[in-house]
Amino acid sequence: MAGGPPALSRRALLRGVGLLAAGGTGLIGYAAGKSALVSAAPPAEPPAAAPANEAAPTATPWPAKPVGAAQVAADPTALPGPVDWAEPRHHQITLDVVEVVAEIEPGVTFSYMTFGGRIPGPMIRVRQGDTVEITVNNLPGNLMPHNVDLHAVYGPHGGGEATFVVAGQPNGMRFTALYPGAFMYHCAVPTLDHHISSGMFGMIVVEPPEGLPPVNREFYLGQHELYTDQAAGVPGHHNFDFAAMQREQPTYVLLNGEKHALTPERRGAMQAQTGETARIFFVCGGPNLSSNFHPVGSVWTKVWREGAILSTPERYVQTVAVPPGSCLIAEIEFPVPGMIKLVDHALSRVVSKGMSGVIEVAGEPRPDIFTPDLPGDPTG
Amino acid sequence: MAGGPPALSRRALLRGVGLLAAGGTGLIGYAAGKSALVSAAPPAEPPAAAPANEAAPTATPWPAKPVGAAQVAADPTALPGPVDWAEPRHHQITLDVVEVVAEIEPGVTFSYMTFGGRIPGPMIRVRQGDTVEITVNNLPGNLMPHNVDLHAVYGPHGGGEATFVVAGQPNGMRFTALYPGAFMYHCAVPTLDHHISSGMFGMIVVEPPEGLPPVNREFYLGQHELYTDQAAGVPGHHNFDFAAMQREQPTYVLLNGEKHALTPERRGAMQAQTGETARIFFVCGGPNLSSNFHPVGSVWTKVWREGAILSTPERYVQTVAVPPGSCLIAEIEFPVPGMIKLVDHALSRVVSKGMSGVIEVAGEPRPDIFTPDLPGDPTG
Amino acid sequence: MAGGPPALSRRALLRGVGLLAAGGTGLIGYAAGKSALVSAAPPAEPPAAAPANEAAPTATPWPAKPVGAAQVAADPTALPGPVDWAEPRHHQITLDVVEVVAEIEPGVTFSYMTFGGRIPGPMIRVRQGDTVEITVNNLPGNLMPHNVDLHAVYGPHGGGEATFVVAGQPNGMRFTALYPGAFMYHCAVPTLDHHISSGMFGMIVVEPPEGLPPVNREFYLGQHELYTDQAAGVPGHHNFDFAAMQREQPTYVLLNGEKHALTPERRGAMQAQTGETARIFFVCGGPNLSSNFHPVGSVWTKVWREGAILSTPERYVQTVAVPPGSCLIAEIEFPVPGMIKLVDHALSRVVSKGMSGVIEVAGEPRPDIFTPDLPGDPTG
Repeated sequence: MAGGPPALSRRALLRGVGLLAAGGTGLIGYAAGKSALVSAAPPAEPPAAAPANEAAPTATPWPAKPVGAAQVAADPTALPGPVDWAEPRHHQITLDVVEVVAEIEPGVTFSYMTFGGRIPGPMIRVRQGDTVEITVNNLPGNLMPHNVDLHAVYGPHGGGEATFVVAGQPNGMRFTALYPGAFMYHCAVPTLDHHISSGMFGMIVVEPPEGLPPVNREFYLGQHELYTDQAAGVPGHHNFDFAAMQREQPTYVLLNGEKHALTPERRGAMQAQTGETARIFFVCGGPNLSSNFHPVGSVWTKVWREGAILSTPERYVQTVAVPPGSCLIAEIEFPVPGMIKLVDHALSRVVSKGMSGVIEVAGEPRPDIFTPDLPGDPTG
Repeated sequence: MAGGPPALSRRALLRGVGLLAAGGTGLIGYAAGKSALVSAAPPAEPPAAAPANEAAPTATPWPAKPVGAAQVAADPTALPGPVDWAEPRHHQITLDVVEVVAEIEPGVTFSYMTFGGRIPGPMIRVRQGDTVEITVNNLPGNLMPHNVDLHAVYGPHGGGEATFVVAGQPNGMRFTALYPGAFMYHCAVPTLDHHISSGMFGMIVVEPPEGLPPVNREFYLGQHELYTDQAAGVPGHHNFDFAAMQREQPTYVLLNGEKHALTPERRGAMQAQTGETARIFFVCGGPNLSSNFHPVGSVWTKVWREGAILSTPERYVQTVAVPPGSCLIAEIEFPVPGMIKLVDHALSRVVSKGMSGVIEVAGEPRPDIFTPDLPGDPTG
Repeated sequence: MAGGPPALSRRALLRGVGLLAAGGTGLIGYAAGKSALVSAAPPAEPPAAAPANEAAPTATPWPAKPVGAAQVAADPTALPGPVDWAEPRHHQITLDVVEVVAEIEPGVTFSYMTFGGRIPGPMIRVRQGDTVEITVNNLPGNLMPHNVDLHAVYGPHGGGEATFVVAGQPNGMRFTALYPGAFMYHCAVPTLDHHISSGMFGMIVVEPPEGLPPVNREFYLGQHELYTDQAAGVPGHHNFDFAAMQREQPTYVLLNGEKHALTPERRGAMQAQTGETARIFFVCGGPNLSSNFHPVGSVWTKVWREGAILSTPERYVQTVAVPPGSCLIAEIEFPVPGMIKLVDHALSRVVSKGMSGVIEVAGEPRPDIFTPDLPGDPTG
C-alpha cells in the first residue's frame, strides 16, 4: 500500500477479484482468479423470466444450472489495508461486472450478477481528498447493461450515468472523495433493485485524514436479500421473482451472498483471538430490507451508525439497524473464547433464509467472565 | 412574517392553501385557490368500499372519477420563512380539511383526504414558547369526521379529541409549543391509518429560541404510502384497500402525494445553485413504512434524526431511516451541478410505486470534483 | 434491595412471578402466584401444527382452549428498584419457563410460552461488574426444550447452550455483567423465532456504577408480534402460523403480550401525576418487526437509543425506532393531565392488532399549556 499513486488501486483490485492472496488469514480461498471469472460467463441459455408469483412460490422447479463459479461469497478478510499515506493520492480502479451462475446453497443455483465475481464487491479504500478513477468493465458475454453509483460521489447519479455500459465495453469516470465515511456502491440501471438483489453492491471507505482507530483485525461483510420463484432450499435453479421483490418478501437473506456462507459448515468461519478488537465494515445492500445486525454472545462495543465516521461512536449497542443503501462501521471485542454468530435479529431471516456468519474466537477460557456450567447442572 | 401576533398565521395559512404566491421559486404553481378547493368537494357518488383483497390486486378496475383538483402535491418551496421574532407570539391557524378526487399519476384517480388540499399539509412554523390556536375546518360536503393530532402538543391525544369535528363545522384548541423540533401532525380519528394514507399529514416546526442555522434554501417534503385495490399504474379509479394496509404492502409510495410529482416530467423539479446549502424538512407520514431517505449523487451533510433539533447533527449520512410518524431535518450542499434524485433506498419503492423527487442544481461544472468521461470511454 | 448477595435475586424473582406485591401502584393484580403457574402446565392436547397459510387466515377456527392462567401481561410497575449498592454483588436468578394457554383478547386463546408466566419476562437489574447466576427451570409438563440468551453476556450464544434444558429440569450458568445498558434476553433454541413470538423474551438492565438519573416512576414494557392461523379477533384457539412468520406479517402486535392489555378497558392503565418524570424500559422482542414507539399527546424528553446508556440522550424525540432484538430507555414528563397512549406509529398495528397502552396522568388542568375548547367550538 506504500508508494505513489496509483499504488493502491491495482493491488487492491487484484486482491479484490482473487489474483492476490488475501492479506488476512486466508480463511476462505478464492476458487477462481480473473481468468476463471471471464470463463465464468453465463451459459448460452438466458435466464428465464420470473413467473407471476403473487403469494407463494408455486412454479415447477427448474433443474439446477451448470455453475460458472465455485463461490460468490467474498472472503471477509480480503480487504485493502488501512490508509498509510498522508498526501492526496490518485487511484485507478476497475470493477469487472461478472454475471455468473453459482450456488446459493448446495444444490440451489441462481444467475448472480456481481462486481468482481464476489458479494459484496471489492472494497475500495481511499483517503479523504484522494481522486479516484472508476471504470466499469462489463465483461464480454454478459447479458445486461450495468453501471456503478457510489454514495461517496458528489456528482449526478453518483456516477451511474457516467459509467453506464453494455456488455463487452468499459466506461469510466473520475471523482474526488470529499467526505469521509463508509459508503455503499451499487449498480444503478433502471432495474437496479433486480441487479442489487442479484449481487451488485459493495463498499467504498473514505478514511478521514487522521485515519481510523487502530484495531487487530478487520472484516468486510455485506447483507442483502434475494427474491426467487421457489421456497428457500428447494433444489434446482431459482429464477428471479419480481413480484416477490415488489412485496419486499425475499426467499433468502444472505451474508456475503450465500446461505450461511461464513460458517464452519460452509465456507469457513472468521477467526479471532481473545483480547483482540476487530472492526466490522458492513454494507446493507437491500434492495429493500433493513438489517438488525447483532453479534450473538457479544455486543458492538463501538458503533458508527450509517458509517458516518465523524460521529461520536455509540457504546455497547446490542443490535443496530442498518437501512438498505447504507453501511455500518462497528468495533467488537473478544474477552472470552467461543463462537460469535452474526445475525439479523429479525430472526425469521436466520435459519432457512440463511442470514448468519460466525467469528471463531480462540483463547483461554475466562471463567471469571463466563462459566457455562453450575453445580447440579444436567450432564450429557 | 414581521409584526405582532397573529402575523404568522394568516399569511402562512393562505400561502399553504394557495391564495398567495409561494415565497420560493414558484416552481410549481398551485392550480386552485381556496374557492376552488371548496368547489372541489367530492362528487355525489360516495367512495366505494374497498374489495376484499388478500394477496394481489384483482378487482375489476373502476373508471376514473372526475377530478376535483388539478394537483394535491404540495409545492416544496411553499413554506413559511424562518422565525424572525424574539418574543413569544400567538398564532391562529386554520386547517381546512379537503376531501377531493385527484390523480395519483395521469389517468389514475383516488379519493384523497387532505389538509388544505395539499400533501403534505401546510407547514406550521413557530418559536419555542409561542402559543398556537389550531382550528380544524371540516369543509361542507366532506363525508368523514376529522381532527388533528400534533406531535408538538403536550395534551390528550395531541389535540385529537379537542379538534374532532364532522363535516361543515370548525373545531379548535390552543397549546403552547414547549419543546423544539420538527413534528408530524395528522388526522387521528379511529381509522387514522386510512386517513393518513389518503393524505392527511403535515409538519409543525418549533424553532428553538436561537433559531435554525442559516441556509440558502428550504424544501418541505413528505413521504407516505397509499394502499389501493389495483396494481400501480392501472388506469381508472383506485379504491382504498384496507387489507393491503393491514399487510403493510402499499401500491404506491409517494413524495408529496403523487407519483414522481417533484420531477421535470411531472410537476417540475426543485431548483438550487452550486455553492448553496439547502435545508430539507421531511415528514414520513407512513402510516406504516419507514423511509430510507437518500440523495442520489450527494449526501446529507448534516442530519437531525427524527427532527430532534437539539441533537448534535450527524455528518455525511448517506441514507437516513425515518420512522413512520416522525420527521427529519437535514442539510445538503451542492458542490457540483446536475440532478440529485431523492429516493427511499428501499429501491423497489422507486420506479413503479413512485417514490422519487429531483433537485436540479445549476452552476459551472467542477471537473476537479466530478468528471463523467475518461479518455477511451465509449461515445454515443 | 439492600443487603449483601444474593439480596436482589430472590426478592426480584418472586416479585417478577407474582408472589410479592409490586412496588408500584399495584395497578394490575397478578392472578396467579408461583403455585398457580405450576398448575398452569399446558393441557394434555398438544398444540396443533400450524396449517399452511400462505396469504390469509383461512383455517376453520378451533374452539377456545381452557385457559391455564388468567393473565400473561406483565404488570409494568413490577420491576426491581434502582441499584442501591456500590460494590460488586452476586445474584442468583431462576427463570421458570411456563407454557400456558391464555387469552390474547377475550375469547381468543393461544398456547403461550413465557418466562415466569409473564410477558415480558421478569426484569433482571444489576450493577456493572456484578456476577449473575441464571438458571433456566423448564417446568415439568412443558412440551419443549428451552434456554436463555442474554444480550448482556460475553459468552457463547449469550448463555444459550449453557442453559439449554428439556422439561422437568433446571440448567444454569454464571456471567459477569461487564458493560452497561438495557439488554434483551430471550429463548434461543433453534426455532427461537417461534418461542419469542410465543412470549419468551424480557430485559436485563445493567446499571453503570453511577446509576441511572433519578425519576419519579419506572415502567417496564415489551412489544412483540404474534403469528396465528386466524385473523385478529376471530374467537377460538389460534394456532401458531409459521408461514405468516416467514412473511413477517403478524396477526397481533402486542404490548406486554395481550391485545390492549395496559388500557382501562382491559387490565388497567399505568398511573402518573403531573409534574413527574417517568422512565420507560422498553424491549422490542420482535421476532421480526421494529417498533416505532410514540407517546400520543406527549414526547420522549430523553432517549437512549437501543438502551445504550452511555450515549448522550437525544432530546424531544417524537417516535423512536427500536429494532427487533433491542431495547430503549426513555424518559417522559407529564406537564398536563389526561391519557397518554403508547403506540407503534406503524399505525395499522394499533387498533385490530392490539398495540397500545395507556398512561393516565392525574393532576390539575394547565390551560396555559393546553386548552381543548375555543370560543365558538361545537358543543356536545
